[in-house]
Amino acid sequence: MKKILFIILDGLGDRPSRDLDFKTPLQAAKKDNLNYLASKGIVGLLDPITPGIRPGSDTSHLNLLGYDPFKVYTGRGPFEALGLGMNLKPGDIAFRGNFATVDRDLKVIDRRAGRIESGTEKLAESLNMKMDDVEILAKEGVEHRIAVVFRGKGLSPKITDTDPHEENVPVKESRPLDDSGKKMADLVNRFTRKSFDILDSHPVNIERRNSGKRPANIVLLRGAGVVPELENFEKKYFLHAACIVGVPLISGICSLAGITPLKIKGATGTINTDMNAKIRGAIDSLSRYDFVLINIKATDIAGHDGNALLKKEIIERADRAMEPLRDILKDTVIMITGDHSTPCSVKDHTGDPLPIMIVTDGIRSDNVTSFDEISAVKGSLRIRGSDVMNLLMNYSDRAEKFGA
Amino acid sequence: MKKILFIILDGLGDRPSRDLDFKTPLQAAKKDNLNYLASKGIVGLLDPITPGIRPGSDTSHLNLLGYDPFKVYTGRGPFEALGLGMNLKPGDIAFRGNFATVDRDLKVIDRRAGRIESGTEKLAESLNMKMDDVEILAKEGVEHRIAVVFRGKGLSPKITDTDPHEENVPVKESRPLDDSGKKMADLVNRFTRKSFDILDSHPVNIERRNSGKRPANIVLLRGAGVVPELENFEKKYFLHAACIVGVPLISGICSLAGITPLKIKGATGTINTDMNAKIRGAIDSLSRYDFVLINIKATDIAGHDGNALLKKEIIERADRAMEPLRDILKDTVIMITGDHSTPCSVKDHTGDPLPIMIVTDGIRSDNVTSFDEISAVKGSLRIRGSDVMNLLMNYSDRAEKFGA
Repeated sequence: MKKILFIILDGLGDRPSRDLDFKTPLQAAKKDNLNYLASKGIVGLLDPITPGIRPGSDTSHLNLLGYDPFKVYTGRGPFEALGLGMNLKPGDIAFRGNFATVDRDLKVIDRRAGRIESGTEKLAESLNMKMDDVEILAKEGVEHRIAVVFRGKGLSPKITDTDPHEENVPVKESRPLDDSGKKMADLVNRFTRKSFDILDSHPVNIERRNSGKRPANIVLLRGAGVVPELENFEKKYFLHAACIVGVPLISGICSLAGITPLKIKGATGTINTDMNAKIRGAIDSLSRYDFVLINIKATDIAGHDGNALLKKEIIERADRAMEPLRDILKDTVIMITGDHSTPCSVKDHTGDPLPIMIVTDGIRSDNVTSFDEISAVKGSLRIRGSDVMNLLMNYSDRAEKFGA
Repeated sequence: MKKILFIILDGLGDRPSRDLDFKTPLQAAKKDNLNYLASKGIVGLLDPITPGIRPGSDTSHLNLLGYDPFKVYTGRGPFEALGLGMNLKPGDIAFRGNFATVDRDLKVIDRRAGRIESGTEKLAESLNMKMDDVEILAKEGVEHRIAVVFRGKGLSPKITDTDPHEENVPVKESRPLDDSGKKMADLVNRFTRKSFDILDSHPVNIERRNSGKRPANIVLLRGAGVVPELENFEKKYFLHAACIVGVPLISGICSLAGITPLKIKGATGTINTDMNAKIRGAIDSLSRYDFVLINIKATDIAGHDGNALLKKEIIERADRAMEPLRDILKDTVIMITGDHSTPCSVKDHTGDPLPIMIVTDGIRSDNVTSFDEISAVKGSLRIRGSDVMNLLMNYSDRAEKFGA
């Protein structure tokens, strides 16, 4: 049985770019190591969900790891909270929220509290509380954004939003959508009122008023979802599993699945992440783990920035960092792909397929000698995200036989 | 966001033909425009339903438009009635039927009333009636065929046929298959008896008897199905949508889905349809609509006739009509495929996959330079009908992200 190294170059796939003489960044990049690995392995195109579906990083990683996002992705709230680094537990009810400005009658004046930019850490902190037997956790996001998590027994996401989604109307009362939501709706309404009581007189807001800014004096909630109970990854696949991931959303998903996040010095989830450290760290970890997932976020960041030259450079850096992978093919199955395309011409995720390779000694190479979107068309793989773990289990000699 | 042009060359796919030096009609045809568009776009093979399934035009169009035929295709009756141009409403119960000849005791003498060829329009007309609170609509088909629709409250398709499917036995009494079918079975039995009362003495039948022909003096019903409630296409995809379709079955499906049928002068659904008018009309309509579906039936007709030379010629005519498509790639995503294969050697639909292309400026071309069944194997698409709308939404920059 071999080890499995699962490398995600986030947002890897792209479209032809004017700045690169109508090549994709991956086509244009000098990438001797990726090409070497591709030439030794099997290559093809991957639809992270199904053809044409525009994946989020969350739904894609879930599917790639063998969790059907159509079943476990129950709402934005839990994944927004994971993305902020909150430590969630299955059964928690999580919401996306806004700090907003209301008047004395709780009429919404500004859904974004004057696009508040600072002080939200303290505001969020003041909202952590216990209500009856339920624990409430709050964490600020970017600008006016906040995530709020309710932890306790008898909770359900089957309620309506308090966010009216428009201004100059009162904050909405949350209503249960079915019997399971009664307790939750009551808690949410009390929390909303309480958030006004706490925030309206909070020092941060007193200072905002003094400098003529709108107070962030209430929290509006939406997108309730229950944190899913993911079947434990280690039990599902009999793999002792770790991940090296800078992005909170993805490490949060790994944690929920029981994949241990490892800290590697220099691995940051930013453009300047130390890719050598990440790859070396992953190779070292394979002595202790059967499965190591690496996510390199920098490619996606360049895609969102619409910077094809930068994306090409980042791919070249990643390629150089992959040099040591040539030496571990005997005992390791290496998969390299992305979680979705983030074309520089679109500056956002698209549903375009992306190249994938799986390589290990003894695999039936399909003679594709370049790792890019166009060459991948000639490879032997034409798969969906939900196929990936099955392929890796097969090529690492770990798959159980289905039948006799 | 781009517009979407959805072109179906009906029955396009084929097999190698002896008459074409063992090429398919699409391989043999001169098709500069199709080849040009393919070389700019992504190409591949499409299974309209799933591999090997022999689609009808109805089930295929449903699946291509994003409606699961295994869920919404509840029986032949409704689609037979749509194919005759009847204006159906969700919840209507529709049957396929035969004009037949029975004796005084309602014993079936001839299930096809001597293969009656004329007069059925008047016969069907005489069967439109109201029974209790239920409206009954009848429309003649080819030869002895007829469709009958029951419209009203409390109706269900859960009943047995009155057609005994053999001769020299009595007309069958319809029985409910469950409680929901009681009212329906009663209505059907009364309608059947009434059809005899009306038809047996109808002038058309008196004349038939006088000239020694068998009277079409009863209607035998089979294939009960409920007209499905299709989720409104415009709401499902946020696309203002129209179609240019000569075939009643397909325009009927479009109408059920809320896609507006447009009339184009010269577009007929026959071999002699004015393809230039159809393509020009579609391009013009894109100024008012986000999505326009064209169905060109002539290819399928040639396939059913087993005439490979004619099919090749029709493809060449379609190709010439497509010249203006070269000029709209900047703002339009064009899809060209068929709804199924109708190989000339088989003269009927088969489950063979068929070529598909999706083309627009900026798409990641996969370097397939000919649009035919064999070249398509080298393209990047290997998809099913249910993927098509997702791909078109993706490439027109209209897809919603699934996740974050």
